[in-house]
Amino acid sequence: MAFAAEAKTTSIPARDPRATAAAIAELAAHFGNRLVTSQAVREQHGNTMTWIDNQAPDAVVFPQETADVQAAVRICAKHGVPVIPFGAGTSLEGQINAPQGGVSIDFRDMNRILAVHTEDLDCVIEPGVTRKLLNEHLRDQGLFFPIDPGADASLGGMAATRASGTNAVRYGTMKDNVLSLKVVKADGEIMTTATRARKSSSGYDLTRLMVGSEGTLGVITEITLKLHGIPEAISAGICPFPSVEAACNATILTIQSGIPIARIELLDEVQVKASNAYSKLSLPETPLLLVEFHGTETGVAEQSQRFGEIAEELGGGPFEWATKAEDRTRLWQARHDGYFAACSLRPGAKSLATDVCVPISRLAECVTETQRDVQEAKLVAPIVGHVGDGNFHVALMVEPSDPVEMKAVKIFLERLTERALRMGGTCTGEHGVGQGKMKYLLAEHGAPALAAMKAIKLALDPQNIMNPSKMLPPD
Amino acid sequence: MAFAAEAKTTSIPARDPRATAAAIAELAAHFGNRLVTSQAVREQHGNTMTWIDNQAPDAVVFPQETADVQAAVRICAKHGVPVIPFGAGTSLEGQINAPQGGVSIDFRDMNRILAVHTEDLDCVIEPGVTRKLLNEHLRDQGLFFPIDPGADASLGGMAATRASGTNAVRYGTMKDNVLSLKVVKADGEIMTTATRARKSSSGYDLTRLMVGSEGTLGVITEITLKLHGIPEAISAGICPFPSVEAACNATILTIQSGIPIARIELLDEVQVKASNAYSKLSLPETPLLLVEFHGTETGVAEQSQRFGEIAEELGGGPFEWATKAEDRTRLWQARHDGYFAACSLRPGAKSLATDVCVPISRLAECVTETQRDVQEAKLVAPIVGHVGDGNFHVALMVEPSDPVEMKAVKIFLERLTERALRMGGTCTGEHGVGQGKMKYLLAEHGAPALAAMKAIKLALDPQNIMNPSKMLPPD
Repeated sequence: MAFAAEAKTTSIPARDPRATAAAIAELAAHFGNRLVTSQAVREQHGNTMTWIDNQAPDAVVFPQETADVQAAVRICAKHGVPVIPFGAGTSLEGQINAPQGGVSIDFRDMNRILAVHTEDLDCVIEPGVTRKLLNEHLRDQGLFFPIDPGADASLGGMAATRASGTNAVRYGTMKDNVLSLKVVKADGEIMTTATRARKSSSGYDLTRLMVGSEGTLGVITEITLKLHGIPEAISAGICPFPSVEAACNATILTIQSGIPIARIELLDEVQVKASNAYSKLSLPETPLLLVEFHGTETGVAEQSQRFGEIAEELGGGPFEWATKAEDRTRLWQARHDGYFAACSLRPGAKSLATDVCVPISRLAECVTETQRDVQEAKLVAPIVGHVGDGNFHVALMVEPSDPVEMKAVKIFLERLTERALRMGGTCTGEHGVGQGKMKYLLAEHGAPALAAMKAIKLALDPQNIMNPSKMLPPD
Repeated sequence: MAFAAEAKTTSIPARDPRATAAAIAELAAHFGNRLVTSQAVREQHGNTMTWIDNQAPDAVVFPQETADVQAAVRICAKHGVPVIPFGAGTSLEGQINAPQGGVSIDFRDMNRILAVHTEDLDCVIEPGVTRKLLNEHLRDQGLFFPIDPGADASLGGMAATRASGTNAVRYGTMKDNVLSLKVVKADGEIMTTATRARKSSSGYDLTRLMVGSEGTLGVITEITLKLHGIPEAISAGICPFPSVEAACNATILTIQSGIPIARIELLDEVQVKASNAYSKLSLPETPLLLVEFHGTETGVAEQSQRFGEIAEELGGGPFEWATKAEDRTRLWQARHDGYFAACSLRPGAKSLATDVCVPISRLAECVTETQRDVQEAKLVAPIVGHVGDGNFHVALMVEPSDPVEMKAVKIFLERLTERALRMGGTCTGEHGVGQGKMKYLLAEHGAPALAAMKAIKLALDPQNIMNPSKMLPPD
């Protein structure tokens, strides 16, 4: 595959195969049949996205509690063998590949909801719980957890990747919704990063340091999450705009006006066309904003009306909105089916999803330049954006076996990231770095900040066994 | 003073006075008359709160730009001399003392607002800008910065201390409102911790690591802050409750109901009595909640009405509220004058303010036990709480020259912190650790987390020159 070589450019020191064998023997004694070394299972754990080659671990273990994870890390630390945490396998940038081999720790069986504190609006869960499972559990209590990446990811993976989704403009990202973590450190010690207090000024913010560290500083074994009350009323709407710029300006004005919008999603013309065809809709084939408001009946009506006025002021409309569940689902159909609609643009192609995030004042320019690049490179690549955050996704529909196309894709991806950085943005708003975006870290953060990150990594994982060859580029 | 010895129990390695003299000579060459070594100025920089003894630095420098800070840090690093950042001098736990001597970096002259990006709702400022100065600057643009510790603190100090205040229940703390920092590291390199993008999954969260690190990992020289639109309408109200428990339960129910309350402040009976006397009010002398709602005219009316219903359900009331500025000021008078009212309880006494924060489900219990302790120890100590966060302050009015009283105060403070930790809380919600709360870090965080903090400190400041003998207790 076209990008395999690039993902492997890191010169990886060879690990001693005898050390791996010794570690596996010790793990077998602890884990019994919860240690698996079959080729099929190993390969399942060595890949997430198709654009980075499968790099399988040497073994997979299935812990049932924190003590199991501690045992696995201690054994791996003793033998200098890599440890790669595995949640639902939905990461997009090669976060769970095992380029140096090692042991994948699969949290499939650590999926218990340990406590829900309704008065404190928090819960304590194991990392294998997926976001949908959690929300099903919470529904009867009138609570929900708002972070919603596209996939039904595990909350451990979401914490490790600093994930977000459509609700981030109102509810924040994983950074804002993790209160505390239990973590097995590289030395096998179990640390708790914070208390359940809503805020603290005591000590370094280890919680935020671990959130987004992609398993490179330790293995998360328990998560305390903030919860939110299910809103009394929800309104949802859809609004066409004459241009991406008009849609982005409406977004800016909405946020400036203090309208506490819960979701504001951009679909570009290409995505709208795909949705019309796939979902049999008849939407105007211009950039669209899909919006959602949370509050009281009166509140969401007022918010919807004000948004409609702003949209019209900027040449958008007609703005259609509704509060009944079935009407809301209908209005958001294009977004719900977005992934499949995009895939239908080029049947048989692979989807290569990437994301960047820029200050919202530069978003229209960034999306428009990117659309021009898509056209010029003759790529099939609809754009969907969490525009309230300045974050957007390009879903490239690619033919991985075509080297000419893959070269164009590679150039496109580099130009996209360079554009985002040039506009004061980041190489990834929510997908993470993994292997795929390591090469941009220096350009984004600069040498002094990258040196600080590497110093922290070395301090907390001196043997470099925690998910090595990820995130931080080699010197 | 009674607590001086305790604050100095850390065995501090002697610094070589010749090194200090050599550093000061080099600093004089760079800073000219912006280097000051007079006794008076040094002592002004070696104390914040009266309960920890003055520990003056050897010199004070007044940088005008990041390059000056870099020069100062490089000179100090070369000679192994401590560097202590100084903002407005309003920290409460000895954060700016110089127990090992060294150079205080006073940001008085670095108080420029460098940029306001209205479309992105952010601004870039120097660390010497105070929160009031910033809000005066922003007012004409319809924007504000919500974090409001009691004092007119500098935003650099607020970032370093992870400060918050009355608006945190709605707008978060400094952790949530700092987008990026420019920092001079211990090696003299200048790093930028993040881009201006609203969210990112790229690399370790250096921003959150620096926020709350109290100058122990580097010196902040520039801050990018999130801003918010001034709400179209504000309502404020006051409501008496039969007990602290009833007031806390009303707070819990308000938040659970999804009412986006902007402020919810508890005044205990002692504070209300003080306010009645000082501000010539006639409030019922029971626990009070002071609340504020931000939104549209309709929205704040609806929120106020709903809060009133909840309060009544829990035996509170009557709930009086208003939207006109002068009426709101009148209703909140007791809060605005709270500090002076507390001081008037014992004229001539010193105020010793402390804070803890617990999960909100334990707040009533924690406050009630604390009140009992105040009574039993015969202390004068009103309580004011940011109850939406589970955070409260005890304002001890003490006579520092009375060793018997100070011993009782010391026991009271230890019991308070132990109580908060026992209830799953933190030793400080917003004042920080400094020297005063170092001794609680191990009990709060546990050995593995504290070891991680110390490893990070050693990695980023191997010479231990950045605000040494603060936050992290010695082994």
